[in-house]
Order: sequence, then C-alpha cells, then structure tokens
Amino acid sequence: MIIVLKKRESNTAVEDFKKYLEQKYNVGVHVSVGYDSVVLGLIGDTSAVDEESIKAQEIVQEVKRVQEPYKKANRKFHPENTVITLENGLKIGDGNVTLIAGPCSVESEEQVTEVALSVKKSGAVILRGGAFKPRTSPYAFQGMGADGLKLLKKARVKTGLPIISEIMSASQLSLFEDVDIIQVGARNMQNFDLLKELGKQNRPILLKRGLSSTIDELLMSAEYIMSRGNEQIILCERGIRTFETKTRNTLDISAIPVLKKLTHLPVFIDPSHASGLPWLVEPLSMAAVAAGADGLIIEVHNNPAKALCDGAQSLTPKAFENSVKNIKKIAEAMGKTI
Amino acid sequence: MIIVLKKRESNTAVEDFKKYLEQKYNVGVHVSVGYDSVVLGLIGDTSAVDEESIKAQEIVQEVKRVQEPYKKANRKFHPENTVITLENGLKIGDGNVTLIAGPCSVESEEQVTEVALSVKKSGAVILRGGAFKPRTSPYAFQGMGADGLKLLKKARVKTGLPIISEIMSASQLSLFEDVDIIQVGARNMQNFDLLKELGKQNRPILLKRGLSSTIDELLMSAEYIMSRGNEQIILCERGIRTFETKTRNTLDISAIPVLKKLTHLPVFIDPSHASGLPWLVEPLSMAAVAAGADGLIIEVHNNPAKALCDGAQSLTPKAFENSVKNIKKIAEAMGKTI
Amino acid sequence: MIIVLKKRESNTAVEDFKKYLEQKYNVGVHVSVGYDSVVLGLIGDTSAVDEESIKAQEIVQEVKRVQEPYKKANRKFHPENTVITLENGLKIGDGNVTLIAGPCSVESEEQVTEVALSVKKSGAVILRGGAFKPRTSPYAFQGMGADGLKLLKKARVKTGLPIISEIMSASQLSLFEDVDIIQVGARNMQNFDLLKELGKQNRPILLKRGLSSTIDELLMSAEYIMSRGNEQIILCERGIRTFETKTRNTLDISAIPVLKKLTHLPVFIDPSHASGLPWLVEPLSMAAVAAGADGLIIEVHNNPAKALCDGAQSLTPKAFENSVKNIKKIAEAMGKTI
Amino acid sequence: MIIVLKKRESNTAVEDFKKYLEQKYNVGVHVSVGYDSVVLGLIGDTSAVDEESIKAQEIVQEVKRVQEPYKKANRKFHPENTVITLENGLKIGDGNVTLIAGPCSVESEEQVTEVALSVKKSGAVILRGGAFKPRTSPYAFQGMGADGLKLLKKARVKTGLPIISEIMSASQLSLFEDVDIIQVGARNMQNFDLLKELGKQNRPILLKRGLSSTIDELLMSAEYIMSRGNEQIILCERGIRTFETKTRNTLDISAIPVLKKLTHLPVFIDPSHASGLPWLVEPLSMAAVAAGADGLIIEVHNNPAKALCDGAQSLTPKAFENSVKNIKKIAEAMGKTI
Repeated sequence: MIIVLKKRESNTAVEDFKKYLEQKYNVGVHVSVGYDSVVLGLIGDTSAVDEESIKAQEIVQEVKRVQEPYKKANRKFHPENTVITLENGLKIGDGNVTLIAGPCSVESEEQVTEVALSVKKSGAVILRGGAFKPRTSPYAFQGMGADGLKLLKKARVKTGLPIISEIMSASQLSLFEDVDIIQVGARNMQNFDLLKELGKQNRPILLKRGLSSTIDELLMSAEYIMSRGNEQIILCERGIRTFETKTRNTLDISAIPVLKKLTHLPVFIDPSHASGLPWLVEPLSMAAVAAGADGLIIEVHNNPAKALCDGAQSLTPKAFENSVKNIKKIAEAMGKTI
Repeated sequence: MIIVLKKRESNTAVEDFKKYLEQKYNVGVHVSVGYDSVVLGLIGDTSAVDEESIKAQEIVQEVKRVQEPYKKANRKFHPENTVITLENGLKIGDGNVTLIAGPCSVESEEQVTEVALSVKKSGAVILRGGAFKPRTSPYAFQGMGADGLKLLKKARVKTGLPIISEIMSASQLSLFEDVDIIQVGARNMQNFDLLKELGKQNRPILLKRGLSSTIDELLMSAEYIMSRGNEQIILCERGIRTFETKTRNTLDISAIPVLKKLTHLPVFIDPSHASGLPWLVEPLSMAAVAAGADGLIIEVHNNPAKALCDGAQSLTPKAFENSVKNIKKIAEAMGKTI
Repeated sequence: MIIVLKKRESNTAVEDFKKYLEQKYNVGVHVSVGYDSVVLGLIGDTSAVDEESIKAQEIVQEVKRVQEPYKKANRKFHPENTVITLENGLKIGDGNVTLIAGPCSVESEEQVTEVALSVKKSGAVILRGGAFKPRTSPYAFQGMGADGLKLLKKARVKTGLPIISEIMSASQLSLFEDVDIIQVGARNMQNFDLLKELGKQNRPILLKRGLSSTIDELLMSAEYIMSRGNEQIILCERGIRTFETKTRNTLDISAIPVLKKLTHLPVFIDPSHASGLPWLVEPLSMAAVAAGADGLIIEVHNNPAKALCDGAQSLTPKAFENSVKNIKKIAEAMGKTI
Repeated sequence: MIIVLKKRESNTAVEDFKKYLEQKYNVGVHVSVGYDSVVLGLIGDTSAVDEESIKAQEIVQEVKRVQEPYKKANRKFHPENTVITLENGLKIGDGNVTLIAGPCSVESEEQVTEVALSVKKSGAVILRGGAFKPRTSPYAFQGMGADGLKLLKKARVKTGLPIISEIMSASQLSLFEDVDIIQVGARNMQNFDLLKELGKQNRPILLKRGLSSTIDELLMSAEYIMSRGNEQIILCERGIRTFETKTRNTLDISAIPVLKKLTHLPVFIDPSHASGLPWLVEPLSMAAVAAGADGLIIEVHNNPAKALCDGAQSLTPKAFENSVKNIKKIAEAMGKTI
C-alpha cells in the first residue's frame, strides 16, 4: 500500500504517523521524501489495513492499494487451479466445462424428474433446482421449501446427478446437509452472516456475483467463506446492472478472464439470469466457454409457459439439447470436454 | 396490466389464454381486437401477476404493468403520510425533519457516550451506532456485537435519546428486542428471510435502499415487511452505484420526491454513506431537506482518524454542530423544524 | 404504439385526442374501452411519433411502443444480412469474420508500414490507423491529422490492405475521400450533424456505440445515416460504462446476438477499447466470435510502450499473430473463416 | 504522479526509465527504493503525461495521479470564483443564483415571445430556446435552425433578456455570432473539434456534462476550450445515466459541491433534462440551490402538450411562477438572491 501525504507536513507528524501505522497494523513502513511530497510504502501483510480509515487521517492525501486485499482466494499465493471433487467423483475446475441444468424452481416430482432425465441425456452432469426462491414481490411464489429439496433429492436418486440448490439463510443449513453444492444467490453475496456459517461447512459453495458488485467484492465474499476454513468455492458471474434494457442484466464476459487471472477458483457463468431471454442462452454460453469459463448453469423447464417462476428465460429440454451441441463445438475448439 | 399479443393469433388461442389468466390470477380480462394486434387489459388486483411468466407465453408480444405491484406501501390506497411515534413520543414523518446521528460503530462506553451527548446538544433526536458491521473484508473490524448494543443502551439511559442499530440476521432478533428502531442495511435490502421476520416485529424498521436497487424494488422490500403486519417502515436512500468515482456512491436526490409521490412512508437520506466524504455531508443534507426529506442519518465520531470503521466519512462533533445550523436554515425555509 | 389513458376521461376528450393523433402523425387509431381504462392502439408508421410528446398530454397515463422506431436498419423490413463489398472485392457481413488491425494512431511511415505488413501476414484484411484522435486531454497527442491519412494510404499501397480511419467532424470529409471505411467514434455516435453528412457519402461507415448508449440509440444513429441514403453501415460494440473498474469499460457481449436479431447490419467488436488491457484482447475476441460477431477491430503496435496513444491496450505483432491462431479455432468451430 | 514499478527490476532498467520520463515529459523524477518495490515520484507539470502510456511500460505495476490533469479550470491555481459578465451587465457566478428559462425548442414568434415575457415576469434573467435540436430519431422535429435563432433574437429585443441556444457543429458558428451564451449539449461534450473552435470565441459557453461522463472528463472538456483562450465557461450537470428508470436520468447532486471544490467555474443544474418530469423540476431546483448551484436552466412552454419536442418535461408559465417562489425561499435561506 502506497500512502501519499499532504505537502509540508512536519517531520514529527510524519514520524508519528509512521509509528501509528506500524503498531496498529503490524506492518513495516518505508518513508520516501520527495521534492514536494512524502510517500509511505507499507511492507508486509496489508490485507487488514482499512483504506477508508487511512484516508480519514488529516495528514493523508491519497492512498493506493498495490497488494490485493484477499489472500486465500489469490492466485499469487496459490498458483494452481482449485479442483473440486464431488462425492460421485465429478471434478469441477479441472480444465473442462461443467454443465449444470434444471428448472428455476422445483414444482412437482414429475416436473423435476422429467427435466432431470432430459438434461442428463443432453449432457448436464449436475441438476439445479430452486426450493427457496428469492422473489422481488412478497406476493409471488416463494418456492416449495423443504419439500422442494426432498423432490430434488428424489430426482438425484433416479438420475444419479449431484444436486445444487440455493440457500437463503443460515437457519436453513440443516435442510441442506445432503445437498451436493450449496448456492448463494446474487442478493446474498454480501450476507456476511450467511457467508461466515458457510465457511464452517465441508461442502462446495457456488457463490454468485451481486448485481452491482465489483470483481474485488466478489473475491472478498469468497474470502469470507475461505477464511473460516471452507475453500471449495465456485464463483459465478450472472450479469450486472447497467442502463441497457434489452437484456435483464448485462453479462460481464470480461469477468471470466479477469477472475481466472486473479484467483485459482473455478469460474462459472449463468446465461439464463444474465439475459432473462431464452434465445440468448446459447450464444452467451458459447461466448462464455470461448472466454474460458469452467462451467455453465442453465435453466431448463419442460413447460416454460407454465413455470411458477422465471419461465421467460427457461429453455425447453429440446432447445437445451440443441444448444449443448453448439456449445460443445466451442469446448472442443478449446481442447476441452463438456 | 396491458398484454399485447402477437399478430395473427387464432380466436381460440386468444380465448384459451384469456381463460388461463382469469383462473390463474383471479382477474378479469378485457379483450380488444385492433387492426393488427389484440390487446388484453387485466382488471382487478394484479399485484400477484408475474410479468416474467406472462412474457414466457408463446402468444405474448409485450407486457406493460399499469398498476404498481405494491399495495400496503402505495400512496394510492393510503393517501395520508404514515407518522411513526417512538416510545418517548418522538414523531417521524409528521412534516418535520428528524435528525439521527452517532458513530459508525460503537467502540467503547466513553466514545459512544461522548458522541451521544454532543450530537444531542447539536440537535439530533435519535442516536445511531453500529454493533454488527457488514464489512467487505473478513479481516476488517466486524463490530462489538452484543456488547456494542449494551453500550448503546447505556448511552440511551444517559442522554434519553432513542437508539437505532443495524441487524444482519434474523438470529440476532432477541438482542434487538429493546432497540427503538431496527436498521436493515443496503446489502440486506433483499435478504427476504430477514424481511419476513421483521414483518412480525412491532418495531419501526429503517430500510436502506440497495446499491443497485430500483425505487420499485425498495418499495417491494418494504411491502415484504408490511405484508407480514409491520407497517412502521422508514425508507432510506444512501447512494447508488454508478460510474462516477469522485464520490463513493451517487446520491439519488430525485428518489426523495419520487418516493414521496409513490408511498406514504417517511423518506430519509444518509449523506455519509452516499458520499463517503465528510465535507459533502453538509451540502447533501441541505439538498435533501430542500427536496423534501423527512429525516437525515449522519455519522459523527469524536476522533474520525481513530475510528474503527468508516472514519473517512465521519464528521467531528464540532463540524456536525456547524452543519446542523446550516441545515436548519433550509428546514426553516421549508416551514419545517429540525 | 399502445397508449393507456387516465381513468374517467369523457368520451369527447377521448374523441378529440384520437383526432389529434390521426392528424398530427397520419396514423390510424383504434379505441378500446375497458372496465377501468381506455386503451388506444396506433396503426401505421409510428416511427415519427414522439413518445415524450405523447406522455406530455394531460389525458395520457402510459405509453408503450410496440413497433421499433427504426425502419431502414430493421431486420423485419429487410430480413437478409447486409453484405458490404469493398473496392478490392472484400466482403463484410457475409457470414465470415473480418479482421481489422493496426495502430491506435499513425505515428510514422516506418511504424504504420511495419505494423501493416505484420498484421496482414497474421490474417488481418483491413488496416486501421488513427489520424485524428479524440483525446480526453487537450494536452495529449491529437494525432498527425492529414499527414497521418497520407501515411495510411502509403501503407495501403504497400500492402494492398483497404484502410479505415476515424473522422471527427464533417469539415474533414474531403480528406477522407479516398479512405475505404470511415469510422465514427463512440464520442460522436450522437453527433447528428456528422451523421447527416455521412448519410450523403457513398462509403461504408463503421459506427461505434457510445459509452452509455443503448442498443436502440445505436440503431437510431445508424438510421440517421441510412435515412439520408447511405446504407453501408457496420455497427461496432466497444464496451459500455459501468461501475466495474478492473476493465476500462464493460464489453456488452449480449449486444452481438441482440443486434443480429434486430438488424441486418454487420456487427463488429472492438476488444481493445472495451478492455483497455492487452491480455484481455484474445479471450474477448474469442468470445465475440463465439457469440456471432461479423468482425473484430484490434489495436496492434510494434512498440506499445512507445506508442503515442493508448499503448497500454495494444498487442505486439507477435502477440497478435498468436491470438489470431486461437481466434481462428473458434471461427472454424462456428463454420466460418477469418 | 506516483509510479510503482514491478518487483526486482535491475538498477539499470530503473535508471533508463527515469531518463525516458525526464526527457519525454520534461519532469523531474524522484526515485525511492523500498523493501519490495521501487516508487517514482514525478515532479513538475504532469498534465501532459499520459497515464495509459505509462501503464503500457513493461516495468510499471501501478500508476496514481496525484495532481489533477486540468490547469486552467483548477481552483488550486485560480482560487477566486470566475464571474462572467454579459453585455447587459448581468453577472453569473457572483454568489447569487441565475435563472435561465424558456422553451425546449423555438416554434414560432408568438410562442417564444409569450414564454419569454412570462418567464421574465417570474424571475428568469436569461432566455433559453433551441434552434438546432439533437434528436435521437432522424424522423423527429430537428428544430427551426437559423430561423429559430432569428425568433429568439426578436424575443430578446422585446424582453431585454440575453439569450442562450445550443450549437451542434462548428459550421454553425457564424449563426451564433450574436447569441449571448453558446450551449454545448451533453452529446457534444466530447466533440473535441467543436470545443477547439469554441476556445477561439470571445463568448460565454455553457458546457453540459455528458450522460456518462465523469466529473474529471467534464473538467477536461472545459480545459479544451480554456486552453485555446476562452475562459468564460459555465458547467452544467443535467443528469447521468444509471439503472434507475423512474426518472429519465439521475441528477448527480453531489457534482455541485464537488465541482465547486475542484474548479472556480460557475456550476448550473438542468432539472428538466435530469428528470424528464415536470413535477420534479421544483424539488430538484430547490435541492440544487441548497447544494450551492450558481444557476438553473429550466424548460417552460406555454402549451407543453403541443410542444414539438420534450413537452413532457416542460413547466407551464404558471407552474414556473409558483416554483420560482419556492426556489427563492431556499436561495434566501442561503443568503443569495435569484
């Protein structure tokens, strides 16, 4: 961290500030006196140094963080890719493309089973399905809850597909004991109490980026979980909020190569939520794989028009089957398998 | 709700769709056949009608919501301003300006008491103080927790000021039993599980707008709480995320008159978090009052440079005293008292 | 266009408004009286109807445009892709991927020739080079001007590559007489006076999307040019402005399939300006081709560190050569050639 | 400017880079060798130093600009407020609030005269009126052009009010010879060729902030004009583009105090374009004055429903009269006159 002091500070003031930093943050401080400014360089682990607090000092003009504030998630300290292995042996982040698919919300045994069988046939290796649904309106369908998770597990038995579902509160953790991957939705990316509890679990977490969260904030949320012990994190970009209204959100495709550079964690894309439009799922999926994504999470519904939530963006099983064929072509061109 | 159908749909298809809508949502449907399009008008309570689901229908070209999706928060159905009365008789939303002030986080008995006494003297009528702090970094100070709430209550005894503090999870509710106003932070605005629990409380809630939440979404989150029975909500605009970097966030000043038109709930502004800069708190507060805000929530610290969090944006007690004088001039010009 | 009137308007008022619309805009108006609202449907060409003006009418509650406001650029009225043929026979928009490359700004004969020869060898078929540079600072290098164009033409003679360069004002048109494709930069996307003049030219125009322009606005700017007679337009997405700071702008990858659906014009991507970082050019290019882009425009400099502008985002000729190999793999997977 | 070099660079490489900087930019360079990084401090005038170019150097890790890149517009080098005096003696930026009002576009002699007389009576001291209109659609009314300017001048004769109108291209300059203040619209804020020409004029320029332009970019555009000799610039915030759709744009109220701190130029607000809604003009104007704005530019039309452009956001003369009364109360509370 580089700290530029205001002009014409006395030597005593500079010396006092240096000592304050050394003691408060347990870092070394290198002082450099230039022609018209004094620059301090902080040496050591600056991840706990609060930029805002530094800026609040009368003596300080500018602060520039040079080191990233995340450690466990940082590729610098962990150069190899994190590979997550599920109970059935499926590997995530091993250089190939993992396909997750399923309905937005679990609605009935028939529905989730039918979708599960069809997406498996088309190439999906993990089944998604919402039991607890974060809905903007209190009057909208809120998900089947615990019963939804039961149906999802039944579909796992029938298909052999590991399952992923979204958690909305730490109080639901006991219900998720048997779920293969726990998903944290965009609206809960900075629900720090939930993140802390997930840090104590021994289960992979798929962490979605918030609608207006920066890449650094996403990594800091991963760091929350990792710093408590759970290092099995999958990051997921699902569109950010911009002024453009043709798509529900704007898929930040650059987030893939940027995250792959900054962190060793697997990076997934959710083209269904990013666009909100079924006909965009295929081209965005192909783009994501070409940009280096480790996986995709796609909504598929056997009857989108009758879906209890988010039907507008769901693919039919047939459309999904066709799209996977085209996505596979890109994966193959990248030397990867789906 | 107006639904425009695609061209050249058969009469049977239109009739089937009409019946589907009537049964699923319990609404009336008026069909209007134009030259080159069929338009359906939904009659009755459409708040539970899911736009996304309607858009997913093959037959549909466009959907336009005419009625707002919130009811309890809607000024149309509740024209008079909601006035909230605290235990000590203080009224919020009665046409005057309520001043909340205090430290970002409670750090010690001396600190919170000193700040409380000074802000009271300057004109604040409610004391704020964070006990549980939502921090981007897991390595940053996370607040004093339950002990912080105890110190805040001590300061209430000493000053007579009602207190407000931020809750981060429904599991903390028992600790907040005695807190006068419960604050929901921007990052938890769509933590729907928390909102549902707060809907069962008999205590005023100050609900902050999320960093990238629309005004409609803020109102829908208020509706979550209100639909469970608790109608004592204070809305708070605290800056939204844009491309501008001179300020930490961009204060959406228009949100004040827009919200005052759409809802009967009191509207507050947090100029400290909106700007992140202490010298902007005064002009933004003055602007907020001039635009019709019902209250302000301002960070004050007796030693900003030593604050354990967000010191950069805190006013000193002296600066706060001076700012209140100028803010009062605007309130007076508006015919209001602070 | 659907217009929803306010409740309880008199029949006379509705009839008067109907006549006003018919006369002012030369459209048919279909009136539909519902239970609690009157809906008007406008029939005919509504592209000249001003939504804002309609909204200003006392009688109007809501307006919803159903028809797109652009005609010449609209795929509905021109289903086949527009294919642009340059003088040397090169086709743009014919289903393959066109590669444009070259330095941000022309700096010397040696520089532009060296870069031109190398990018041609790697697969570029058009040479880019800035002569007039739109720079944020008046103190920054503003381009070589007319001399730069001369050097660019010399490089064309030596390599046989058609050339593209950015125009900044209609007063420069005579200098661009011999330039194969005229580029309109993001900052001039709504310089309507320039667009009108370009509409009279018989030369292809590459029109870049503004930093905060919507897809509809980009199409309306194309419509400005087309409505004056010049229908040879290439659209170019080059990143939009968001809150994310890891990349200079956020590449809106969804704009490719969305534009391909809405319009028959070719769609290009500029990964260099979108990201501002050389190591992102390759993955973003691959993603763009996978999402269906018709072409790429990439900055290449023989000595990025010494470039007079935007060096930070330029590829070296060697890096460009390597990237093209990987981009070609994606094109091949799509059944296209570069 | 502070430049942080990558770790473990050789002394020779550092020395070479130091010489390169000194020669290219004519600045002094102070080298500071820390524990694990080398930091360079640039001394002297760094406004011409291109950050992007510095970042492109292999040796560089981070760049931080400490000095602002604008000089003429910078309050540091010109602490007193710029006061602009029009021919009729009217002063702008002298600590009071200047009221500009008039129709979006000039439509007829009757219209502009009637509006001019009424806004003058209500307190406006400058008349606005568009002759050349930047419209998103080529099919929308483009303004009366030269004839519109003539009518505006006639209204000036009748009312004695100085006039302001928007220029769209340097080729129109001769038509604006007699216009008191030349306006540059948001879409032309970075039309650098136009800015350069305006720098040679001896007339005040009202420069509007672009829809997605940062405060620094606005100041750099002012610097373009000032660096050519014309230092009579009025800056105008008119709303930026965000995700919120309740208002046409989001008024960045913080821009007022931020600009007042950074520059000595007068700062105006355009509440009509910022909101797009007539009922928001009054509260936003009051907020702007409370935040320290030097002036307001407001759209008034004698028949908004019949306006040829932007009628939706225009006030009637009567509404304007009432609003001015309330705005004056705020100005008085600030110790200013309107």
